[in-house]
Amino acid sequence: MEVDEKYFKNISHRERAIFEGAITMGALFHQFDGTPVNLQSVELLEKAMSEAMELQPCIDKVEVTVNREMLKDIENEFQYTSINGNMLDVRVVSIFEDSQAVIRMKFIEELAYPLMYVEKVE
Amino acid sequence: MEVDEKYFKNISHRERAIFEGAITMGALFHQFDGTPVNLQSVELLEKAMSEAMELQPCIDKVEVTVNREMLKDIENEFQYTSINGNMLDVRVVSIFEDSQAVIRMKFIEELAYPLMYVEKVE
Amino acid sequence: MEVDEKYFKNISHRERAIFEGAITMGALFHQFDGTPVNLQSVELLEKAMSEAMELQPCIDKVEVTVNREMLKDIENEFQYTSINGNMLDVRVVSIFEDSQAVIRMKFIEELAYPLMYVEKVE
Amino acid sequence: MEVDEKYFKNISHRERAIFEGAITMGALFHQFDGTPVNLQSVELLEKAMSEAMELQPCIDKVEVTVNREMLKDIENEFQYTSINGNMLDVRVVSIFEDSQAVIRMKFIEELAYPLMYVEKVE
Repeated sequence: MEVDEKYFKNISHRERAIFEGAITMGALFHQFDGTPVNLQSVELLEKAMSEAMELQPCIDKVEVTVNREMLKDIENEFQYTSINGNMLDVRVVSIFEDSQAVIRMKFIEELAYPLMYVEKVE
Repeated sequence: MEVDEKYFKNISHRERAIFEGAITMGALFHQFDGTPVNLQSVELLEKAMSEAMELQPCIDKVEVTVNREMLKDIENEFQYTSINGNMLDVRVVSIFEDSQAVIRMKFIEELAYPLMYVEKVE
Repeated sequence: MEVDEKYFKNISHRERAIFEGAITMGALFHQFDGTPVNLQSVELLEKAMSEAMELQPCIDKVEVTVNREMLKDIENEFQYTSINGNMLDVRVVSIFEDSQAVIRMKFIEELAYPLMYVEKVE
Repeated sequence: MEVDEKYFKNISHRERAIFEGAITMGALFHQFDGTPVNLQSVELLEKAMSEAMELQPCIDKVEVTVNREMLKDIENEFQYTSINGNMLDVRVVSIFEDSQAVIRMKFIEELAYPLMYVEKVE
């Protein structure tokens, strides 16, 4: 593909897989953070988030899991809350040529932070 | 409900229906603007957008239609585009007590703008 | 203005002010929820949020205050957090003709929820 | 830093710089897409976007330029438009240890698409 020739010659296939997976993870977080959700709507929302982000370049698969426990604990009277990064567990699988990267985001207790990292790359 | 007593005594039922519907319309636009979409993913995304926004206070129903023609015309090689307000047609039905409002957003050619207005209120 | 004639004849000036203010409040929440912020960046971000939302139709003024206490309490090692509705206190002043509405959003302890309501309208 | 030890041992310094820069680029696009903007507000918004995204891990500098020509061409009567990827030119500089990456996003005419790529990495 010409685009690869012109814009991506300076990085390896492995780096490209990491690059595209990381973009999609950052995008997913900031696109959907704030979306209203509860136990009834969560499954469809997870699917829509996956399908949307799978459209991005080099993305093979996106798995999104919203923490059900955090949805059960909703205490306000409106019976829903807003998606935030702390309740997300996401895997983005990106492929470029012979390289595959699995980018992960999950809430890390010790860090008190939803960390994004490279779970696997080859 | 106590909340109504405490925070909404200064507006009529009709105004409350308009208020809640308008919040949800503004929210929907700015939550999902930018989401990747194409002809394959659009139907599920519309449903997820509806279900999410129907969780908000006083919202009875949300109908979202993304303009298919604009999705057919995608010319880039990545085969998807990003949701923007110009391709959305949305109806939010909000109910408070005996009042119902239908808030509409659609692209108005003459205005070159996705206008939000009150389609019906009673 | 023709737009008013064509699309807003069915609501009062007061309802119009409420309508436009409510749209902008919903929009503000869902546009900026998730934005990285800390004590150093918060002031500029508040201004940018205000300026952006003041562009919307009939909006006279938007005042945004992010809860500094919640920013001081950031415990993760990355020294920033993401904006969420619970840390926002916002006033949107909307004017249509002879009517003015003040829409407010703030976190209500008893509701465990960032409530949007009409603080004043005349 | 322990986090690096625990979560990032499987990638090189160079890959880490690419990874963090790419996350931030994806995040920036999807966080701010849809934000109201015009020629008066654009400069402050650019600064706020930069400052917010510079908070993210390993980010040294973020330069955002919104296409002024596209703001001049606003034809609607409301005198503002919504940020979309096509009007953004962004450089994210990320540093990890001895490696630096410059991630770029700009609209590429031939692709009709705002491409994200690695402009420089060492």
